Amino acid sequence: MARLKLGMVGGGRDAFIGGVHRIASRIDDHYELVAGCFSSSAEKSKASAADLGVAPERAYGSFDEMARSEAARDDGIDAVAIVTPNHVHYPAAKAFLEAGIHVICDKPMTTSVEDAEALARLVEKSGRVFVLTHNYTGYPMVRQAREMVRAGELGRIRVVQAEYPQDWLSTKLEETGQKQAGWRTDPERSGPAGCTGDIGTHAYNLARFVTGLELDQLCADLDTFVEGRALDDNAQMLLRFKGGARGMLWASQVAPGNENALRLRVYGEKGGLSWAQEDPNYLHVTMLGEPPRLVTRGGNGSGPVAGRVSRVPGGHPEGYLEGFANIYSDAAELIRAAGEGREPDPAATGVPTVADGVDGVRFIAAAVTSSLEGGSWVRP
Amino acid sequence: MARLKLGMVGGGRDAFIGGVHRIASRIDDHYELVAGCFSSSAEKSKASAADLGVAPERAYGSFDEMARSEAARDDGIDAVAIVTPNHVHYPAAKAFLEAGIHVICDKPMTTSVEDAEALARLVEKSGRVFVLTHNYTGYPMVRQAREMVRAGELGRIRVVQAEYPQDWLSTKLEETGQKQAGWRTDPERSGPAGCTGDIGTHAYNLARFVTGLELDQLCADLDTFVEGRALDDNAQMLLRFKGGARGMLWASQVAPGNENALRLRVYGEKGGLSWAQEDPNYLHVTMLGEPPRLVTRGGNGSGPVAGRVSRVPGGHPEGYLEGFANIYSDAAELIRAAGEGREPDPAATGVPTVADGVDGVRFIAAAVTSSLEGGSWVRP
Amino acid sequence: MARLKLGMVGGGRDAFIGGVHRIASRIDDHYELVAGCFSSSAEKSKASAADLGVAPERAYGSFDEMARSEAARDDGIDAVAIVTPNHVHYPAAKAFLEAGIHVICDKPMTTSVEDAEALARLVEKSGRVFVLTHNYTGYPMVRQAREMVRAGELGRIRVVQAEYPQDWLSTKLEETGQKQAGWRTDPERSGPAGCTGDIGTHAYNLARFVTGLELDQLCADLDTFVEGRALDDNAQMLLRFKGGARGMLWASQVAPGNENALRLRVYGEKGGLSWAQEDPNYLHVTMLGEPPRLVTRGGNGSGPVAGRVSRVPGGHPEGYLEGFANIYSDAAELIRAAGEGREPDPAATGVPTVADGVDGVRFIAAAVTSSLEGGSWVRP
Amino acid sequence: MARLKLGMVGGGRDAFIGGVHRIASRIDDHYELVAGCFSSSAEKSKASAADLGVAPERAYGSFDEMARSEAARDDGIDAVAIVTPNHVHYPAAKAFLEAGIHVICDKPMTTSVEDAEALARLVEKSGRVFVLTHNYTGYPMVRQAREMVRAGELGRIRVVQAEYPQDWLSTKLEETGQKQAGWRTDPERSGPAGCTGDIGTHAYNLARFVTGLELDQLCADLDTFVEGRALDDNAQMLLRFKGGARGMLWASQVAPGNENALRLRVYGEKGGLSWAQEDPNYLHVTMLGEPPRLVTRGGNGSGPVAGRVSRVPGGHPEGYLEGFANIYSDAAELIRAAGEGREPDPAATGVPTVADGVDGVRFIAAAVTSSLEGGSWVRP
Repeated sequence: MARLKLGMVGGGRDAFIGGVHRIASRIDDHYELVAGCFSSSAEKSKASAADLGVAPERAYGSFDEMARSEAARDDGIDAVAIVTPNHVHYPAAKAFLEAGIHVICDKPMTTSVEDAEALARLVEKSGRVFVLTHNYTGYPMVRQAREMVRAGELGRIRVVQAEYPQDWLSTKLEETGQKQAGWRTDPERSGPAGCTGDIGTHAYNLARFVTGLELDQLCADLDTFVEGRALDDNAQMLLRFKGGARGMLWASQVAPGNENALRLRVYGEKGGLSWAQEDPNYLHVTMLGEPPRLVTRGGNGSGPVAGRVSRVPGGHPEGYLEGFANIYSDAAELIRAAGEGREPDPAATGVPTVADGVDGVRFIAAAVTSSLEGGSWVRP
Repeated sequence: MARLKLGMVGGGRDAFIGGVHRIASRIDDHYELVAGCFSSSAEKSKASAADLGVAPERAYGSFDEMARSEAARDDGIDAVAIVTPNHVHYPAAKAFLEAGIHVICDKPMTTSVEDAEALARLVEKSGRVFVLTHNYTGYPMVRQAREMVRAGELGRIRVVQAEYPQDWLSTKLEETGQKQAGWRTDPERSGPAGCTGDIGTHAYNLARFVTGLELDQLCADLDTFVEGRALDDNAQMLLRFKGGARGMLWASQVAPGNENALRLRVYGEKGGLSWAQEDPNYLHVTMLGEPPRLVTRGGNGSGPVAGRVSRVPGGHPEGYLEGFANIYSDAAELIRAAGEGREPDPAATGVPTVADGVDGVRFIAAAVTSSLEGGSWVRP
Repeated sequence: MARLKLGMVGGGRDAFIGGVHRIASRIDDHYELVAGCFSSSAEKSKASAADLGVAPERAYGSFDEMARSEAARDDGIDAVAIVTPNHVHYPAAKAFLEAGIHVICDKPMTTSVEDAEALARLVEKSGRVFVLTHNYTGYPMVRQAREMVRAGELGRIRVVQAEYPQDWLSTKLEETGQKQAGWRTDPERSGPAGCTGDIGTHAYNLARFVTGLELDQLCADLDTFVEGRALDDNAQMLLRFKGGARGMLWASQVAPGNENALRLRVYGEKGGLSWAQEDPNYLHVTMLGEPPRLVTRGGNGSGPVAGRVSRVPGGHPEGYLEGFANIYSDAAELIRAAGEGREPDPAATGVPTVADGVDGVRFIAAAVTSSLEGGSWVRP
Repeated sequence: MARLKLGMVGGGRDAFIGGVHRIASRIDDHYELVAGCFSSSAEKSKASAADLGVAPERAYGSFDEMARSEAARDDGIDAVAIVTPNHVHYPAAKAFLEAGIHVICDKPMTTSVEDAEALARLVEKSGRVFVLTHNYTGYPMVRQAREMVRAGELGRIRVVQAEYPQDWLSTKLEETGQKQAGWRTDPERSGPAGCTGDIGTHAYNLARFVTGLELDQLCADLDTFVEGRALDDNAQMLLRFKGGARGMLWASQVAPGNENALRLRVYGEKGGLSWAQEDPNYLHVTMLGEPPRLVTRGGNGSGPVAGRVSRVPGGHPEGYLEGFANIYSDAAELIRAAGEGREPDPAATGVPTVADGVDGVRFIAAAVTSSLEGGSWVRP
């Protein structure tokens, strides 16, 4: 099967997530990187292209130019990965969709609800594939968890506990010139939320992905503990889901001892489950009245939905990059199906898309509003 | 050193917590059980007395009679342990305090703020010792955690995460005749809160004990997931502490896979810590910029405050009963100091007392009010 | 039920294990300590007696005198706990058995196979109860494990992995005056083995207790890593059990990062289990083809044999002292049954006794022989 | 940097490890797969080639033909990955080395010591790079552990505990037609050892890699628990290292509850460490007298040696495939340096090579000899 031709916006030298996207795109051999706007400086973009084995004539200094040029080539890219700071997601996605190119975009999707909704309309109109890299949904044990909830194994869901604590912004790292900290704490590039948009939205998306529950209302306290920081670095929320389930969500960048401690716990009438991103090959499941069981990726109790997105046997851990690769591989299936005018593998359609992006941006906006109102209950 | 003479109210056959109190009182050999009102039926009380080696003439059918009779004896009890359902705590404590007898009382202290405040005045007036068995504060690693916070090792506290999930009331156990479930879900005996009063208050007390922070406001969702149950079986709250720290608290009796999963996490400017009741000999501590360290009871990094309340070397786990015994041993020191007219060992004075009881009952009342108001912010 | 009258040999000030025995004897209220030879100095013995509430006239300076005097009293002790260094076990046990007093004795039982066999004959002749405090067999989850093996749930046992690493003797602690280190590294008081006798024998006994397997042959390397130490501080062995099962045993006092990391793993044709002393409320069980399950003390999957020796519900951890107390409580049942001329509760008869003591001493002797012969295969 | 052209021997449809090698070779983008002898049937080989995007004219039915043909092409492969059952390793490696092609070969290197030694001479003579995929040495935390031992942080090493239990061969899986089980239990294809050669050699290599210790003698019990199986499925050994360190090694395919539970523990005069393959991002380190610390990949306490072979920040787990990719990336550096006539990056030279292969095969032979002799002490 021929590889898809992939372009990238962002992801030049010093970037973190661009390299992740590139490895993720290679793992299952569905893509070849052939073009990029790796920087808004054409010169820097060409330097990165040289590092990455991309032809110099396909290294661009503007995403608009890239979209036009690639659309015009016979061997132009099939899809683009947008891996920039948040504020560029919307205009870049718009440019490529309008050029008829499929989009794989980082989260949060946009910096405003208006942009998110506009993008959703644009995707619909374009008929192109739009995949949002809420990459944690790619982990096999997350897929397994979702499948168990869907199958009713836990019964009706009552309580959802989601959290994503980190500690890397416990001090004012953005003042040291650290690029990741720089843009994430800058409202111009990050949007109206800091911690909430960067990682809170991952926790929220994961809860939604696994449980299928829809948010009815939230009540949020967004705080900034590091003096002089412009955006929230700690967020705590109560969640009320439609149908009566209750939840809590905590995201923090100031919790020493936590690296990327994303964790989801779901409790239903008949059972409960717990999953932690830092130990992603394990799913803890307890059916009421039975001893807790440990379902491992590839092990007993893990079903075909997880098996489909696994590469190696149980006890040989897969990690973050493989989870990310699963998003890319599902995207490849959607893109090929679109190209071939056929229905995609239903198993691939669970991958987060523009609707999840809108949902996530609304979540962020509701949290910001609630907090500004002193912790009021807000509908997203 | 002669043993203190102990009486007990409650704790007859079928009771759970009475047996715990008795073992806790024996472990360090400071008490001898010599009297009791083990049941409101004089006959049942005598039967329990026979089981327990208590003389039949000191087995009473009413706590008022017991208070009067014991106060009148030359060899009357020094202290009474009140281990009944919640609604009896206040009248029983009142009777013994008025009879000049020291009181060790289970939590929550009373079923209303009014009673709690009245009891506090009574304790003050009586000059007697009043100890509240928020037993989790007796664990050595909890003492260690508190000491580290006090010493400023974590810096100014920013975030506090407390939770106490259980699963035993996931179904309507109270309908099966199970006594523990029966009174805990009955407003007449339990007071206005279920889960919040039974275990939420433990989580709240633990957070306060370790951090020393005072609650400013809370916003709570108290829910009843099991149909037909009269009291809350799941409670979720946002906490705002005086001085700006933020917290979350979750208590649940409907979370399958959790037995007594009380857990506290505290994050400050310089470090964080985590402690879990089910693995109580471990304290996880991370100083910003250093690898996480595991401080074990009796091991390296554990100081004299924890050592004082430990009996065996590191690697030989102490558990729930030893933690409970530490409350009893500290109470013994307070009682003896009172009897000898001397100041008690300062290390023993951290044990929860009537002020913590008032604080806990106010917390419960605020949570109930907030929830009734649809999740408003309430000051306790 | 009247308490049994207990005496103690050893366990004076500075001793560690004496205090443990005393707490263990109190937890379930079956014993009262009324006499003791707490030191070979009568004066020191009386000082300890005063600390412990033992009458001065029942504080002895020699165990022979104590045995004679107590046997002559109407209110003499029912049983004696021998908690001295190893070399005293045999003569003290002999004295009390000959005086008709039941014996609870620390391990290893004696310092030579000859003494062990002589003691076994003496116990038989005396008709007295002899309980050996291989206390780890008292843990509820160890009892549960044994029950599962007995019931055939794991199928025929193939592999047994036992280990007990510590780190406290990684340096020459015995030179600092630390008493525990002093006698344990002294052949005069400890016998021919150090680490092997002190903790290797616990690991061996635990393996035997849970699996019921009998040792056929062993091959051992006993080493002394701390220069100038007289006894082994690290022991590694291959075990061949009768019937074909294979095992390994490691005991060490020089393994940094290990406190009392006794661990047993048992693998059979149909399933496997794992238990660790430092987390004793958990039993990890995997049936072939099923996900691993976590059986907790008091939780689902834990049966009546464990429940019989538990005091508090699941999720409220019991520890080392409760496990030790279970040995004392089983001993109490044996002693009372002997006194009443009835058969004891069959569940109490699993407690280690003189036969296990002989077996343990033979194990030690075989390991020492094998190692002296350069790692030959030796039958115990 | 242009990609290296890679060929593969083995790894057709139904193979497990071939796919792993291919992903590992892609992750860091150093290789492109362009040729292969994926099966000894030319037809099957071509079918696999089509799956893999390899040109049909470069799909071979014999490795000899492939070596000759590729060596003759201008665009012939730079290196070959040999991923067949064990018995093919030697002849295939010989063919490619003689054709001047670099070799990346699976383990155990050969099925006899004679072949291993012959291969070592051949590598020396050829001047080609030979890398052995003892892939566990590629894990960042294994590199970190080795670096700590080398730097003397643990002091002189005393005790080494290595184990690799699995459970997948607890029943006679080879009779079901499962291909992996088939060749691994067949002496014709696996060599004289089963479990010992397949996974015992990994545990041994890991111990050697981290500690640098050389084996002096071993005493082994190799057993076959599944009736009718031709090779060992459980191996237990005592190890004596040169210089006095002692070790134990356990490998098993019949230990229910274990997937790929490779674990190494190393104890020295000053500290100890523990690493487990199933949780590979964690290194547990304890310095004597300090609390245990958790060093995470990318976290505090993890140094540049681990950082060099990491791709994503701490808390985002890397797994088996990334560890494997590190072997491939180090091999790429060795191959490029050879091509450019320069010294390779010294950090890449730690990758296992032919000398480790000889050492591993000698280990297997010694274990087999010892066991055949009833558990004698054998020098490798």
